[in-house]
Formats: sequence, structure tokens, C-alpha cells
Amino acid sequence: MTDINNAVRAAILIHALPYIQLYRNKTMVVKYGGNAMINAELKAAVIEDLILMSCVGIRTVLVHGGGPEIENMLNALGKESRFVNGLRYTDEETMEVVQMVLCGKVNKDIIALVEQAGGRALGLCGIDGAMLGARQYKPQGEDIGLVGEIVSINTASLENLLDAGAMPVISSVAIGVGADAGKVFNVNADTAAAQIAAALHAEKLILMTDVRGVLKDVRDEDSLVKAATLDELEKLKAEGVISRGMIPKTDCCSLAIKAGVKKAHIIDGRLRHALLIELFTDEGIGTMITA
Amino acid sequence: MTDINNAVRAAILIHALPYIQLYRNKTMVVKYGGNAMINAELKAAVIEDLILMSCVGIRTVLVHGGGPEIENMLNALGKESRFVNGLRYTDEETMEVVQMVLCGKVNKDIIALVEQAGGRALGLCGIDGAMLGARQYKPQGEDIGLVGEIVSINTASLENLLDAGAMPVISSVAIGVGADAGKVFNVNADTAAAQIAAALHAEKLILMTDVRGVLKDVRDEDSLVKAATLDELEKLKAEGVISRGMIPKTDCCSLAIKAGVKKAHIIDGRLRHALLIELFTDEGIGTMITA
Amino acid sequence: MTDINNAVRAAILIHALPYIQLYRNKTMVVKYGGNAMINAELKAAVIEDLILMSCVGIRTVLVHGGGPEIENMLNALGKESRFVNGLRYTDEETMEVVQMVLCGKVNKDIIALVEQAGGRALGLCGIDGAMLGARQYKPQGEDIGLVGEIVSINTASLENLLDAGAMPVISSVAIGVGADAGKVFNVNADTAAAQIAAALHAEKLILMTDVRGVLKDVRDEDSLVKAATLDELEKLKAEGVISRGMIPKTDCCSLAIKAGVKKAHIIDGRLRHALLIELFTDEGIGTMITA
Amino acid sequence: MTDINNAVRAAILIHALPYIQLYRNKTMVVKYGGNAMINAELKAAVIEDLILMSCVGIRTVLVHGGGPEIENMLNALGKESRFVNGLRYTDEETMEVVQMVLCGKVNKDIIALVEQAGGRALGLCGIDGAMLGARQYKPQGEDIGLVGEIVSINTASLENLLDAGAMPVISSVAIGVGADAGKVFNVNADTAAAQIAAALHAEKLILMTDVRGVLKDVRDEDSLVKAATLDELEKLKAEGVISRGMIPKTDCCSLAIKAGVKKAHIIDGRLRHALLIELFTDEGIGTMITA
Amino acid sequence: MTDINNAVRAAILIHALPYIQLYRNKTMVVKYGGNAMINAELKAAVIEDLILMSCVGIRTVLVHGGGPEIENMLNALGKESRFVNGLRYTDEETMEVVQMVLCGKVNKDIIALVEQAGGRALGLCGIDGAMLGARQYKPQGEDIGLVGEIVSINTASLENLLDAGAMPVISSVAIGVGADAGKVFNVNADTAAAQIAAALHAEKLILMTDVRGVLKDVRDEDSLVKAATLDELEKLKAEGVISRGMIPKTDCCSLAIKAGVKKAHIIDGRLRHALLIELFTDEGIGTMITA
Amino acid sequence: MTDINNAVRAAILIHALPYIQLYRNKTMVVKYGGNAMINAELKAAVIEDLILMSCVGIRTVLVHGGGPEIENMLNALGKESRFVNGLRYTDEETMEVVQMVLCGKVNKDIIALVEQAGGRALGLCGIDGAMLGARQYKPQGEDIGLVGEIVSINTASLENLLDAGAMPVISSVAIGVGADAGKVFNVNADTAAAQIAAALHAEKLILMTDVRGVLKDVRDEDSLVKAATLDELEKLKAEGVISRGMIPKTDCCSLAIKAGVKKAHIIDGRLRHALLIELFTDEGIGTMITA
Repeated sequence: MTDINNAVRAAILIHALPYIQLYRNKTMVVKYGGNAMINAELKAAVIEDLILMSCVGIRTVLVHGGGPEIENMLNALGKESRFVNGLRYTDEETMEVVQMVLCGKVNKDIIALVEQAGGRALGLCGIDGAMLGARQYKPQGEDIGLVGEIVSINTASLENLLDAGAMPVISSVAIGVGADAGKVFNVNADTAAAQIAAALHAEKLILMTDVRGVLKDVRDEDSLVKAATLDELEKLKAEGVISRGMIPKTDCCSLAIKAGVKKAHIIDGRLRHALLIELFTDEGIGTMITA
Repeated sequence: MTDINNAVRAAILIHALPYIQLYRNKTMVVKYGGNAMINAELKAAVIEDLILMSCVGIRTVLVHGGGPEIENMLNALGKESRFVNGLRYTDEETMEVVQMVLCGKVNKDIIALVEQAGGRALGLCGIDGAMLGARQYKPQGEDIGLVGEIVSINTASLENLLDAGAMPVISSVAIGVGADAGKVFNVNADTAAAQIAAALHAEKLILMTDVRGVLKDVRDEDSLVKAATLDELEKLKAEGVISRGMIPKTDCCSLAIKAGVKKAHIIDGRLRHALLIELFTDEGIGTMITA
Repeated sequence: MTDINNAVRAAILIHALPYIQLYRNKTMVVKYGGNAMINAELKAAVIEDLILMSCVGIRTVLVHGGGPEIENMLNALGKESRFVNGLRYTDEETMEVVQMVLCGKVNKDIIALVEQAGGRALGLCGIDGAMLGARQYKPQGEDIGLVGEIVSINTASLENLLDAGAMPVISSVAIGVGADAGKVFNVNADTAAAQIAAALHAEKLILMTDVRGVLKDVRDEDSLVKAATLDELEKLKAEGVISRGMIPKTDCCSLAIKAGVKKAHIIDGRLRHALLIELFTDEGIGTMITA
Repeated sequence: MTDINNAVRAAILIHALPYIQLYRNKTMVVKYGGNAMINAELKAAVIEDLILMSCVGIRTVLVHGGGPEIENMLNALGKESRFVNGLRYTDEETMEVVQMVLCGKVNKDIIALVEQAGGRALGLCGIDGAMLGARQYKPQGEDIGLVGEIVSINTASLENLLDAGAMPVISSVAIGVGADAGKVFNVNADTAAAQIAAALHAEKLILMTDVRGVLKDVRDEDSLVKAATLDELEKLKAEGVISRGMIPKTDCCSLAIKAGVKKAHIIDGRLRHALLIELFTDEGIGTMITA
Repeated sequence: MTDINNAVRAAILIHALPYIQLYRNKTMVVKYGGNAMINAELKAAVIEDLILMSCVGIRTVLVHGGGPEIENMLNALGKESRFVNGLRYTDEETMEVVQMVLCGKVNKDIIALVEQAGGRALGLCGIDGAMLGARQYKPQGEDIGLVGEIVSINTASLENLLDAGAMPVISSVAIGVGADAGKVFNVNADTAAAQIAAALHAEKLILMTDVRGVLKDVRDEDSLVKAATLDELEKLKAEGVISRGMIPKTDCCSLAIKAGVKKAHIIDGRLRHALLIELFTDEGIGTMITA
Repeated sequence: MTDINNAVRAAILIHALPYIQLYRNKTMVVKYGGNAMINAELKAAVIEDLILMSCVGIRTVLVHGGGPEIENMLNALGKESRFVNGLRYTDEETMEVVQMVLCGKVNKDIIALVEQAGGRALGLCGIDGAMLGARQYKPQGEDIGLVGEIVSINTASLENLLDAGAMPVISSVAIGVGADAGKVFNVNADTAAAQIAAALHAEKLILMTDVRGVLKDVRDEDSLVKAATLDELEKLKAEGVISRGMIPKTDCCSLAIKAGVKKAHIIDGRLRHALLIELFTDEGIGTMITA
């Protein structure tokens, strides 16, 4: 780096200017997960990207999951998984661990990194201010325990934080409403991010994954679909091109776009500064989905 | 209850009116802990009291610890305590558990109860927005690990929440500053409450305990000191009247009063609706400390 | 009262909590009159109720008449009533007395009581800020002098006062508009209250009367109609069940409900703390009218 | 008037411009009384002047007394005056009449005129919002009943009204405070105006009287003192030049000036448009008192 | 002037009051040009009128051209005019002079006069904040150089200045947009004023000219059309009554009225205080056009 | 540029992050002049730098002079310079040209460039809103005509524009005050920038020049003084090290620093993106002056 002269540095900063102008005061919701949350170096780079986004005026919301950390804690506690017709069952004890790890460990660790890097973040989960209201989710009618689907979003606290210049960092835990009042649910973080983006009328939803994006051939990273409209996406899905693992993510993107979010991106979190490259350089990365 | 007629009900509500008028728009910081946090019935009553306080316009801040739950989790994880010269040492693993349990379990459980009861609360810890900045605390120079003392308080987020009509619920975890940047500390919840009360220029600091208050004779609950000035408190302390367990609590009260908090109360959390009785009836309970 | 212990007191306060939560930030317009305005003890109780309503965040507007005081003053001044076809005629001299007594005596006496009890109230009449604009009211074409019907309401001053946390107390005097510019009119206080409730999109209109409510048999107080929809009310009226004296009051309620006010209540002002019992206990009193 | 051509009209309006520029956004307190309040033509002219003042951005507060109307009402009611050592005693009955006439008749009549002329005014007395707090006034220790001296002024409501573009019209009635809580007092309107001007940090206090101003020879209207500093005023008083009737008025001016009001004026209310001439023409009228 | 007594002065000011009340807080756009901008005495009178308008709360916007000064500067620079099919061609050099004279000389000279007279004005042109966006204007397809027609108006800066109590003074220069980005255009000041009035939903558009108004016979100043609706104007135009020089001005008025401006006036700038006379006396001057 | 990969681009953007965080919401006043204003390529780069500064939240104020353009216009108009004791005299005609060129040409040309590049700028001079008030400047008592020294600064309009997110661009022309009311003055742009920085309590004053900075040996660009305190600067000046041409610039820096501006910079405007390099890279350029 030290061999790059100031003229080049200046040119590169100026090159980012049109994107900065484009995104100022726009809202973006980033789903953070996978390798980018495990690898310390990637993690530090994501934090830097998020702070830069805030600094240039992007209203940034971070939603995180926490798969491996939950797994580790369940193991450490000797908690055995129960299965119902092949699906893992989230019993009360498991849910307690999920809530504790997401809201108390993963969330606060991210906040600590942002604050240490000079940013300003506040951590919330769907319980706080009853931000995310959920009902029990029963895939094909199957009772898999305390897994929820979001049925109401209260954005008042989020707007409040964004207006005050802070970055909300959100754990994907929701509070039961209606007949499920009194319960707490685990909700899918990708879906939570998509629904929050929709509720905030965000400019962009960005899902960080561990693949390059939507691939035509899952074994060939060069088969990346760089951009797709909702119709094209539907066609790819119908043709069986989109892999089973990718379908929930493209569905989240569809949900957001249909609700008025301008663009949804599935990007590769394994790449350092993936967010920054996507937003502030000429070549977007990953797959961009638009209406 | 059903045999109490409306005239009596009305009379009792009206009897509370002068207190409601007195405390409207005033800030009160409540340290919540002990039995009131363990016993389900007491817990529900505390939540009701807090919501009533908010409803009549008291700017209420709740600070909580979480002793037994942390202990339980450490045990469940088979984590053995290390001691240094007789003092328990908070190593990194322990601190992780402390943070996780306080911020992820205790805090969110309280929020869920408040929200279900129709209140509006948001959970924060000292890491969020770097609200509580701490340095390592070394009692008598002893290194006991990640135990901190608060050296800076950023009340912006708290004021923001209070202005928006929400009740902040705060876990006693702080973020390292200065030479301790990059660390996270466990801080004493009573002290945190006292320092937050001081920073907010609160009207009252209320510490919920498992005793009636300051007792002249620790074996005799009827020896309660109903009220004491700072001078009187100092004298009682010098005379050896205040028990070793109570001294840290009276010290917190002194700290708050010296910083301009109007009144500090040590009340008995084992009593149902202790907060409400203290605030809205003629006879205060517990010990009241004033300048 | 002194024999009621704190646990019971607490329970009763907590029992009122759901109502407090329900009514916070809602607007209620109370028509105050009859015995509750004459009997000193009842009067004091009404003032306490109003202050409690304000304290728990209800945006409270009081509208008052002043029958007996006007009568007394007219008598003291030796002013004789003139009748036109059996209807009392409000000539200029009478109107002067009406205005003087309502705005200068009754209104300010109420304000003084509220202020002495620690509340905050400001007195207005329909002339102030041209809040209530009226045209001459001619029942069946009969000219009965300076009696008006309200044709325009300017709520700016009311909203302003309510936003500033004060309780507006309104005398039922209006300013002439259109062809009646330059005149001042006496307007019916019940109707004024109903129209103000409508203009403010109030949650509740509450008419304080000297009966238990709408009675099926005017001689039997146990024949109270506890609740009625507009349709049911219409039917009762058609059946001749509603007494002649009650009809103007139920018409006011209908007017308000049709204009979007959620609930209208006719309650018994002879009962101490009738307002408080209606609002903050499980059993409403009097007659409740809804859409 | 019709023979004055447009060029002259324009010139006269432009001539007023420097004064308009000077007084915009400044606060002026006008004491209204005497002939200007009795004579219908003068009254109409005062109303026009006040509206013009408001229109050009002067924050105008009107304080009024009501001598003759009170007198008339007392007579009509056959109320006889009681005297204590030669001083008229204001008993409760008299005070009731004072309050009723000032707040209910004089005040609302003024408001009606302003509103009909297209202005916006709201009437208040010292009871409203406890704006004027008073204690019993005992000249030379003599108990003369419910006559008060103002000991506290709460300007919140006034500022609120002025900010909203309305003109407060204030009756000189005050609410008892301290040991006099529960009482209502008659207060001198000139003094009330002076104290309100002081509390509002007004630019000008203007007292409308029935004389040309301070006269060196009370029988010679040409002996007008056009301007005086506080020192000069003190000297005139010491020399016995100021008449006994004028002394309370010059004392009010002194009080206001000492409290920071820029200028106090004693002007001749018998002159049509006296306010307007004083404010918007080159030659001031009456006596101007400055520091 | 000195022989006019105060009573007459007062009467004339009061006579203006209804107009002041009518126009407070309304927006008016004045096109300033012709003799009123050349003759020093007329100029001073216009400035006074504008300040008076501001002082009584009219949100005043001034748009100016600058014909003779541009001509003088082009002559001084020895710049010869080029013609295309009989139309003068605005080449780059000419446009530079136009911009420089309008924005740097005429505009700032007006501002200096306003400021010296105690007003508050800020000068802008269509380039500032890209307030006036234009495309090249080609009358009958003829390329006459850098003459533009306004295609977009950004009123944010104007509203901002008006809210802050300042008078915007606008030079009729616009910035190229779309295919014309990078260019600067001269735009017709009358049209600019009309379009700004439309964009601001102004109450009035006032065009100052060097004639009495629309004349039925251009040689007879007594043939003034005092008022016309859009239909009447159209008819006059169809009948050939409106002179060729006047047509662009009446077209501007039509444009503004069609866009919702309440009234458009063509007044005689040769008359001292024409604005003031039009606005604040009973007889309007010039031609008034309404829907 | 195209051969620089995204990783490097990302790294460079991230490298700028600490500076962006440091300068957000800080005010900086840039004096723009010399080659950077003449050379088209440098000009474009300065505009980009200014927009980037605004985009990352720096409250940026630009002050410009216009030497060569004024000279050109005076020559084109055949205006000959008059000298008084060797000093050029600014007569009225010259001042007119100065005002016209600075406010009408240079200023609007800058604004047009900023707007075309997607920024938001508004042009003002010291006459607008009487922002810069000046008295005649007579060096050693010599009358050199309409050259002024600033004696008052009204920052209201500047703050207003900065709060609205716009960049004020200011021509160094001032309005006469006091005995000089009615005149317009040319003021030194460096000094104007320094005084504006002082009045705005700016973080930085940046003077763009045509040299590398303060040089110890004016013939040796490697003799650059990279940083100096006020004391060091004073010493260099006393030692005769600072060249005659540089002294006015270092005096401006001293003036600003003494008034509380944190840092003043003299940088080399001949370097492309000098502002950006100074602000957002590790090595500052030019000379930095601090207290």
C-alpha cells in the first residue's frame, strides 16, 4: 500500500464520489452472516465498510444471525437436538440459548467492534419495543417449536436511531403476538432483513453469503448471474437453475423488491470489503435483483 | 379485591394524585435485582409498577444485575471459578458468559415482560453507543480480571429513548476505554445505577434489595433507619452500625446524592409493589437518604 | 381510609393501569354542570378527577354551563324574563349577564380550583380566538334573541393549549359570524361540548348530568340503559322511552358519535368521583353510547 | 380623507417604515383604560391600532382595568361600599363582582372587537395558568380586603400565545399564593402591566391615561414633560411637581425601566389613534421615560 | 408633507390595515424592470415599497432583468451584435456579459440598496442551487444562441430564504439541464417571474412596466383595461386590441393564473410607490388579471 | 487507473476513513485562487474535492478572489489604472468592474461547475444579507479608494445554508457600514476567508496558493516548513525567513488561529486534488499552522 502515491489515492477517492452522491441519505439493510462473521480479518473489514457507509450518509441497518455460535453453546451445554419428522425442533431451552447467544453475545460483540472503530451503533432485537412481532411458523403444518414468522414490524425505534445518526444492529429474535403473546421466537435472519428493508422502504437489501451469488451451475463460480429481474429470477427458479440452498435467499430478495425496495444484492462475504466494492466501485459484485 | 367498592377505589386513586403530580416528568433510576428478579409473582408486580410509573409521566430507567442466572450458566458450562487472593477472578470466558446472560437473557426477558404488559422498553448495555466507558477495577491493587469501574457515561441514547417515551433497561456491562479499549467489563449494577442517576440529574435513585433497608441491628428488621442525611449515614457507618453487606449500597446512595440526585432509597424488593408503595402512598418504605 | 393497607392500595392502583394505558394521549371532552357544579364537595372531587386525568396523559377539555349562577345574577339585578310564545327571550342585557357570569365567574372559579389543586388550566370562551362561531338559533322559526347555534369551530387555540399540557376550560358563549357578526350568543353547553369533541376527533364525550343516565322508566333508577348503539338509541327514542329532558342529551351524543367520536357517556354527576369511576374502574357507570 | 391623493398616502406609509422596522418582533405591553375604554369611537381606534401593531410584527400584550363598569355593576346590585380608615374595603362579594366584570365583561368585549376587526386575541386573567400570583396588599398595614400585590409572574402562557401570533388581553385579577392560596385578588392594572412588561423583557410599556402625560403644572396641559430619565423623574417627584394622581403611574414606569424595559410612555388616551401616533410618527406624544 | 397632521397620518395608516391583514404571510413575486430600475428616485421608492411589504409579513420575491446595463456593457466592450434572420444571436461572449452584468452588477446593486435601507435581501440567479433549469429556446426553430426556456424550478432555496425572513432577489439567468448541461442561458425575466410565482403558489404576480397597463388604444393612456379575466384577455387578444409589445406580458400573466396564482398585475413602474399604491390603497392601479 | 484492482481501491477508501470520521460535521473555510482557478483541469479537480468534502459531512465554505479576470475586464474596457504614491487606486468605476466580475462571473462560474458535478452550492458576496460589513482601508493613512477592511460579519445566512446542506461560495466584496454606509468595497479574499473562519469557529482554514507553502529559502521548494506554531511562525518572520509575498498569508493564518480556528493550512493549489490529499491522506501537504 505504501507504494501507492497520493495522486492515485486521490483518483480512487474521487472515483467513488458519484456513488457516494447517489447513496447519501438512502437506507440500506445488510444481512450479515457466514464466513464474514467468523473470520476475524473479514469481520474487521465489514465493520470498516459499515462505518464508511454511515460516514458518507447512508442510513445503514445491520441484521445478523449467529448459526455457529448457537451451535457451539448448545454443544457446550450438552443440549441434544430433538427432531420432528426430520426437522430440528426448537424447544424452550434451545430458544433461551438462541436468544442469549444472538442478543447477548453476537450482537454486543458487533457493537463493541463498531464502537472501538469510532462508529456509533446500538443493538436491538425484535423484542425491544416489540419491533418484530411474530406468530409460530409451521412449515407444511409441522410444529417445529419456537420458530416464528414475522407478522408485524414497528419501525419507530429504528427510524429514531437512524435519525440520531446511529446504526441499529438487530438480532433475529421476535416477540410473540396475538395467540402467541408471551412467547419469544427465533426468526430467519435473511427474512427479517428483507422484511425490515421493506418496512423502511430501503434503497437496497444486501445479503452477505458464502458464495459468489446466484450461479447457473453451482459447481462453477464463473456461472454467476450478475443481474436478474424478478421475472428472470422466476424463470431461473422454474428451470431448476437456482440451487436449493440459494432459493430462500432469492425469495427474500423477491419479497423485498415486491415491497418496493429498489435493489437487492446477494454478495460474497468471503471477499474482503465486499460491501464497499459493491457500493463504491464501478463493477458491482454478486447478483443484483431488480423489479 | 372484588368486595372493595368504587368509592374506596376512587379515594385511593385520588390519594395517589399528589405524588403523581410531584413526580411527573422527573427522572428515576431503579436498580432491579435480588428476589424481586427471581420470584415470578414479585417480577410481574415490579413490571406493573414500572409501567405505572411510565404512564404517569415518570422518566424511568431500569438497571439490572443478574447474579443467579450467571452462576447457573457458569455451572451448566462446567466453568470453574478461579480465585486470586480470595477474590473471584473474571477471566475472558467468564466475562463472555456474564455479557451473554445479562444482555441476552436477563435484559431481553425483562423487555419481553414489559412489552407483553403493554409498556414500551428498549434494552441496552454499556457497550451500546459506548454508553458506559470503563477502566479495569483493581481493588487494593489486586488484578481480578475483567471487572471495571465506570469512568465515562454517554447519556445521549438514554435521553433520546426517554424523550421518545420508552423505558431504557440497562445491563451492567461496560466497554473499555483508554488503555482498556478493546475489552469489555462487568460492572457493579448498584454503582452503575448510581452513576447513571448522577449523569441524568435524576430525582431519585431506588435500590431494590432483599432486606428492609438500613438496619441498626441486622438481626432485627424493626431497627430500620427510615431516613438519614449524608452526615447521619457517615456517622452510622463510623459507629459500625451499617452491616458489611449494606455498606456498598449506602456508598452508592452517597455517590448519587453528592452528585445532585435529590433522594436515594434502599427498599425491600421482597415486598409486592414495593416501588409503587414507596412512590404513591404516604408512608415511604425502606431507608431514604438525602443531602 | 386509614385502615386500608398498602397492599390493597397498590392493588387498586395497578387495577387502574390498563385504563391508564388505554387512554393516554387520547382527547376527552367533559361537559360539566348540574349538582356537580353546585355542591362544594362534589366540585372538589370533579377537580381532582380532572387533574388525575391530565396527569395520566389524557388530553382533557372541560366545557361548562352555569344555569343557577346566571339565574341568581339576573334576580339580583332585578332583571325580569321576557317570554315569546312561551320561550324565554335572551335580550342584550340578559346576554351581557350570561357572558359575564359564565366567562368571568363560573369559568375563573373553576380555573382557580384547578390551579390551587396543582393542575394547569386556562379559561376561554367561544369569543377568544373566535373559537366558536355562531348564527342566531330560531327554534321553529321563533326569534328568542341572542341564542346561537355553532356553525364553525376553530380548534387551533385548543390544540395549542393541549399540546402545552394545559386543560382548556370553555364557557358556552359564541361569537356571531356572517350576518350575525358583531353579536355574541349564548349556546347550549351540551351541544358545544359535543361539537368540540367532534372537531377534536375526541375519544370520548362525557356529559355530567343529575340522573343515573338514560332510564327506561324515568321513575325507576334501576331501569338504566347501560349501553346503546346509535340504532338502539333511535329505537328507544321512537318508542318514547327516552324522557323529554334526556332527548337533547342523547341527541348531543348522537351528533358526536356520528362525527367520529368513539364513545359518548351520560353519567351521574351526583356521584362523587363519577369521572374517575367511569374511566378507571371495570364497571362503567351511566349510559355509554357507541356507533 | 377622500381628497388625499395616493402619492400622499404612499408618502405617509413610507414615513412609518423606519418605525415599523425598528419595532418588528419587539414586545410591547399596553395598559388600556380610562376614556379610551369608554368612548366607542376611541375604543374602535384603539382596536385598530392594536391590530396594526400586531400586523407589523409587534408582540403586543394588552392589560386592562375596568373602573366604571365595576362601579356600575356594584350599584346595580345595590352593593354598598365599606370603608376602613377612609379606604374602600374589597370584601368577598365585591371581589366576585370585580372578577366577573373584568374577566367576563370587559375582557371578552375587547376580544370580540378585536376578532370582529380581523385580529386574533385571547383573553386571560392572572388566575389562568396561575399567571399572576399575589399576596394581600396592606397599605401602611391597613387591611383593605382582597387587594393584592403581584409576587410571581408565569409568562409561559403569554409567550406561547405571542409565539402563535395572538394578542393576549389580560384582566388585572390575580390568584393568591403562599399563605393566601385559595383567595383571588384585585390588582392594580398599571402595576400589573409594568410587572408583565418587566417579566417579558418588553421593549416598551405604554400607559394610556386621561391626561396629556406628566405635567409640570397640572392645570396647564402645555407644561408637558416630553421625556425624562429615571433621575429626572426622581427629581421632579422630589420637587413636588408630579401630581398625586400621576405618581402611581410614574412609579410603574420606574419599576419597568429598572427591570430592563427600554422605554415607558404615559400617553393621552383621549386622542384618537394615540398608540399609532406615538409609535409610527416622528413626534412622540405624552411623556417618555427612559433609564 | 410636514403640513399633514397626525390625525390624517393615523387615518391613512389605518386605511391600509385591511390590506395588510389580507396579504400577511402571502407570497408575491414582483418583476422589476424598466424606468423604475433606471431612475434613481423611482428606484429608491421601489426599495422602500419592497421593505414595507416584507415588514408587514408579505413573502416577497423580486425578479429583475437588466436590459440597458447589458447593452451599455456590450457597447463598452465593443462587442457587436450578430443577427440570425433578424433575431439577435446570444453567443458565448454575450452570455458571459449578460451573466456578469445581471448577477454581479444589477443584482448586487439592488441588494445593497435594500440592505442600506434596513431590509434583508439575498441575491441569487438560476444557477445557484440549480434553481432555474433551462433548455435552449428556439423560436420557430431558429437557433438564437444561449437563450433558454425554463423547464424546471427548484424552490427549496427560495422557501428557505423566505422562511428566514429574507427577500430573494433573482437574476434571470438559468443553468442548462439535460442535453444542455454545461451551458448557461439568458431567460426572459417576465417569464421567469411568472414561472417562479407559479412554482411558489404565489398570491400575486406583479409585472412592473413602463406603461399604465393593458390599453385598448395604445395611444390613449385613458383606455386602460382595469381588470380582465383570462377569457376576457383572450378575447382582447383575438380582437387585436392588445399591442404587440404587451402580448408577452399578458401571456406571462395567463401562465401564472392558469398555474394557480390568484391575481396577476401589470402596473406602471413610472409612478412613484406604484407597488405600495397597488397593494395598500383602495384603488388598484394598472391592469389586474384573474381566472 | 483501470489496472488498479478492487482490493486496492477498497484499501485506499478505508485508509481515508479515520480522516472522514475526524472531520464529519466540522466547518472548513477554503480560500480558492491562483492557478487552481485558472487551469481547467485543476479547477475540475478542486470542484470534485469540494463535493467530496460536502458528501462526507464537512461543512465547507469557499471564498474566492479573481485577480486575472478583473484585470482582463479592466483592460477590455480600456480602463487605465491610477496610482497614489505607488499604490493602485480603486475608483468607483474599477470597483463596479470588481463587483461585477467577482459576483457575476467568477462566483457563478464556480457554482455552475459544482451544480453540474452534482453538488449543491449557492453564491453570495458580502453585500448579501450585509454578511461582510467593511470600513475603508487606508494602509499607512493612504487613501487608495474603495478598498475595505471587514469590521463585522453576519454569519446567519452562512449557517442557514450550511445547515441546509449547501456550500456557500463567497465573493470578497463587502458593504460599507457606519460612516461608509452606501459604499461597496473590495476586500482581500485571504483575509475575508480568515475572518469568516474565525466567525464560524471553523476547524480549518485552508489557503490555496501557487507555492508549496512557507519556504525557508524561497528559491528552494524543498525548504518547506511543514508545520509551525504561532510562536515559531513569529520567530521565522522576525528572522526574515518568510518572504514578503507570503507574510500576508501567514498573517491571515495567525488571525484565524488566534480567534480559535484549530488549524490553518497554506497548500499548493498547483497540485491536483491538493485539498483531498491534505485532508484524507496520511501526509499532509504544504504548511500547517497551529496554536
